[in-house]
Amino acid sequence: MTQVDVRQRILSDNAAAATALRERFATARTLVVNLISSPGSGKTTLLEATVRAFGGRLKLGAIEGDIATERDADRLRALGIPAHQILTGGSCHLDARQVSGALETHDLGPLDVLFIENVGNLVCPTSYDLGEDFKVALLSVTEGEDKPFKYPSIFAKAAVTVVTKADLLPYVSFKLDDVRGQIAALRPGGTLLVTSATTGQGIAVWCALLEQRLADKRRSTP
Amino acid sequence: MTQVDVRQRILSDNAAAATALRERFATARTLVVNLISSPGSGKTTLLEATVRAFGGRLKLGAIEGDIATERDADRLRALGIPAHQILTGGSCHLDARQVSGALETHDLGPLDVLFIENVGNLVCPTSYDLGEDFKVALLSVTEGEDKPFKYPSIFAKAAVTVVTKADLLPYVSFKLDDVRGQIAALRPGGTLLVTSATTGQGIAVWCALLEQRLADKRRSTP
Repeated sequence: MTQVDVRQRILSDNAAAATALRERFATARTLVVNLISSPGSGKTTLLEATVRAFGGRLKLGAIEGDIATERDADRLRALGIPAHQILTGGSCHLDARQVSGALETHDLGPLDVLFIENVGNLVCPTSYDLGEDFKVALLSVTEGEDKPFKYPSIFAKAAVTVVTKADLLPYVSFKLDDVRGQIAALRPGGTLLVTSATTGQGIAVWCALLEQRLADKRRSTP
Repeated sequence: MTQVDVRQRILSDNAAAATALRERFATARTLVVNLISSPGSGKTTLLEATVRAFGGRLKLGAIEGDIATERDADRLRALGIPAHQILTGGSCHLDARQVSGALETHDLGPLDVLFIENVGNLVCPTSYDLGEDFKVALLSVTEGEDKPFKYPSIFAKAAVTVVTKADLLPYVSFKLDDVRGQIAALRPGGTLLVTSATTGQGIAVWCALLEQRLADKRRSTP
């Protein structure tokens, strides 16, 4: 078996596990969002702001992927939502079987929205379907506006790009219009939101988008 | 051949190519630095500041690794140093054979210091020796102080950690002492520098470190 064969088998096994997950999430009527970004773009911080903004109005839960430490799950549990940490032990992404395994061993209860926070990485998580309804790519304004074209695959696959840390725009060089242009080229019709968890900018729009997607899913699921 | 066998063969092939590169760099008396960080931590910006600080006093060159775009090599060539862009086409790290191939096809000329700027990723590049003298991990203050323990492998392997974007410290929550503690635990005796390419903070120390390492290498190379 060559390296290419091995990779194809891995992705094919993952696709089967993702299909089973997607059916499970459909039955549970849970909206599932796969969050992908560089380390430190603010995935957990966005989730904290989301939990606070919903204020218990929706049942939220999270699966956190990291190489090491329980830190992210701890931060979300501290806000009162169920969160399970998967430690990948060196792997640069989550896969569907890890998510299945986490759901088998840790019942997160009935959820309206399950956030899967992937390992901080703009490359590896792109190829692994986790049974989610859609992918969200985060890009902080401190990372520079050249990232979508440098990491085109994830920004093409993400239905939503969330620009984070907008409160830092006065202090950095970041051409928002340039990012808009790159996203429009990579993902025509994709959504781009500009947010700051610090000031609250854009958080209500993000929450409204989640509610709309949840309503759409429930309407289309028999 | 199992997945583990395939990975072992890849790493073993890489190690052989890295050994050949290391011999080549020893003969050339070139100091080689492998720069690793998240996307947008400021690797290229640090190199731009380094080129400006040396002002032609040392012969510098760069090999740039990216998934897509020639942007980083273009930025360095604009400052008058030879730079070659390797496009990995989806791979999340550089490997030693790509570096060898780049040197065969693009003569960068005799160099005092060759910077290899890896693909923006805190995970994948960690396992791939590129024949460098040492690895440098960059961590921008906007990424949060929890990153060394979350991505322990790279911060353990990097002889030098460069904290970047220190000019943004007034606007973000970033506990520098916490990072110092994590680096001391992961890499006892490792060097931690605090820099800002915007204000110039720490750049002279970084350049002095490079000159010292170059002098040490040349003294120890017959």
